[in-house]
Amino acid sequence: MWTMPPTDSVLHVLSFMAVAAQSMTAALAAGRRSMDWAGVCMLGAITALGGGSIRDVLLGHYPLLWVAQPIYLAIAAAGAFATILLARLVVRLNLAFLVLDAIGLVVFTMAGCDVAWQVDASLPIVIVAGMITGCAGGVLRDILCNEVPLLFRSELYASVSVVTGLFYATAFGLSLNPPVWTLLTFALGLTFRMLAIRYKWEMPKFVFSGEER
Amino acid sequence: MWTMPPTDSVLHVLSFMAVAAQSMTAALAAGRRSMDWAGVCMLGAITALGGGSIRDVLLGHYPLLWVAQPIYLAIAAAGAFATILLARLVVRLNLAFLVLDAIGLVVFTMAGCDVAWQVDASLPIVIVAGMITGCAGGVLRDILCNEVPLLFRSELYASVSVVTGLFYATAFGLSLNPPVWTLLTFALGLTFRMLAIRYKWEMPKFVFSGEER
Amino acid sequence: MWTMPPTDSVLHVLSFMAVAAQSMTAALAAGRRSMDWAGVCMLGAITALGGGSIRDVLLGHYPLLWVAQPIYLAIAAAGAFATILLARLVVRLNLAFLVLDAIGLVVFTMAGCDVAWQVDASLPIVIVAGMITGCAGGVLRDILCNEVPLLFRSELYASVSVVTGLFYATAFGLSLNPPVWTLLTFALGLTFRMLAIRYKWEMPKFVFSGEER
Repeated sequence: MWTMPPTDSVLHVLSFMAVAAQSMTAALAAGRRSMDWAGVCMLGAITALGGGSIRDVLLGHYPLLWVAQPIYLAIAAAGAFATILLARLVVRLNLAFLVLDAIGLVVFTMAGCDVAWQVDASLPIVIVAGMITGCAGGVLRDILCNEVPLLFRSELYASVSVVTGLFYATAFGLSLNPPVWTLLTFALGLTFRMLAIRYKWEMPKFVFSGEER
Repeated sequence: MWTMPPTDSVLHVLSFMAVAAQSMTAALAAGRRSMDWAGVCMLGAITALGGGSIRDVLLGHYPLLWVAQPIYLAIAAAGAFATILLARLVVRLNLAFLVLDAIGLVVFTMAGCDVAWQVDASLPIVIVAGMITGCAGGVLRDILCNEVPLLFRSELYASVSVVTGLFYATAFGLSLNPPVWTLLTFALGLTFRMLAIRYKWEMPKFVFSGEER
Repeated sequence: MWTMPPTDSVLHVLSFMAVAAQSMTAALAAGRRSMDWAGVCMLGAITALGGGSIRDVLLGHYPLLWVAQPIYLAIAAAGAFATILLARLVVRLNLAFLVLDAIGLVVFTMAGCDVAWQVDASLPIVIVAGMITGCAGGVLRDILCNEVPLLFRSELYASVSVVTGLFYATAFGLSLNPPVWTLLTFALGLTFRMLAIRYKWEMPKFVFSGEER
């Protein structure tokens, strides 16, 4: 998606919305730790752009999106700053944010798969690249907030990303019609994620109480 | 600064001092967590050289400074080790360290801008590269000490870096006399930082107590 | 080691075992934080492959091992998943795991030195590359588990890596017979690590109780 042609303007807009949404939820997390305004904007930008950056660094895919198009930095920082002013509203729009965050997860995942294909990665790496793009930003946010990453503890988040990536990659392998398939993948991923939230689907947990070595 | 010619020996010395100073303050943080001697030296080196390393990795600018010139690793490790032996003295020289740390912030910021220019980055990325170089080492230190990064919570630190970078970049854009401008930028950044410490200037904080989603 | 010829099949097998062992110990740490199954596998893979990945990114050595050979990802994830099923057994085999982990440390260290040589790094960087490869995965694990890294606090772990690297590099510098020397280095490193565990050798600690600045 990052290198999408002008005709993909819908995905382009979705991608901007996804960056803003992920930055805004990170800003709320920053507010819970009483960060200052600069910290809120930095945490927002790191969360929204960190997943794609980690993927690009691991694949050696330069330049990074936000280096080539600093507008993404501006959107992320603006989203975080708007959250400072509109925190109460943002919370009241909780459902809208869950949808936007889910859109972000799916759009980022597909973008990550695209980048991996561009560098001729094998299928497992395409899936992993999608997952890193969709999920690693939230891991960075939780590390910087001094928490065990939510991604490792609850909800179907990484799983949604993997299923989305598998579905997307299958279509690519079969050379199916790209726009149709992109839309189908998007709808599938979004539905899966929203159902997972609605019915509180969770992975089984591994609880181990053995003593530290 | 990293690729400075022999005539820039003043900046070269400042750069060594900055690496040592950042490593020494990291060593004190390590001592508060009772790290062992190897851990103190590692934390010192990661703090002093981490900001520049993250910048280089994000920009794809290889080889990294300390890979090309391992003397920087030695200076960082030596600074941390000296702190173990001289901890009481280091604390008593608190003011000197604040100055050295501020010098580090300003010198690292200018060095980061220089590297971004070398790879033909746009102005926003030049500023961001300077900020990452000046600030990211301290973020790594706080993550490794299991703290919410100080950078996000208090003091004008990132802001000093941004103002320094903007001032430096403006001069470059106007093709002003480099040595003079470098000195002016250095003086401005250092003064701003010391005033911020002296008068406890702070960014407003974003305090949000909404429940976790 | 990563690019070893078919004749090095012993080292190849050791390398697979080392990845599995490091992933399994990470899985136990994940279980102590009640992570879900996906989180356990992700933490295992990040721990087992993170050290080599950080080294490659810092040296600009692409593609990364697990990108070129995704089988390593599968081994790491499978090791972590097996631990979920066999946690009690894994704990009872504590000694076996200490040995496997030590093998991992030594094998990873030598592999890291090899990669640094391939990119014509200087001797200090060869040693540091070995140390990063051997130790950084555990640091990532501890950060993600929200702990101050064990590496910085206790046991001779980094030191074993440094001694192993120095011994290995000396032999290379003297153009000694590679297979013999590899075996000798392996035996030395493993013995050093097991002795350090058995007799609880530790580095002196730096305990500093000065107030936060």
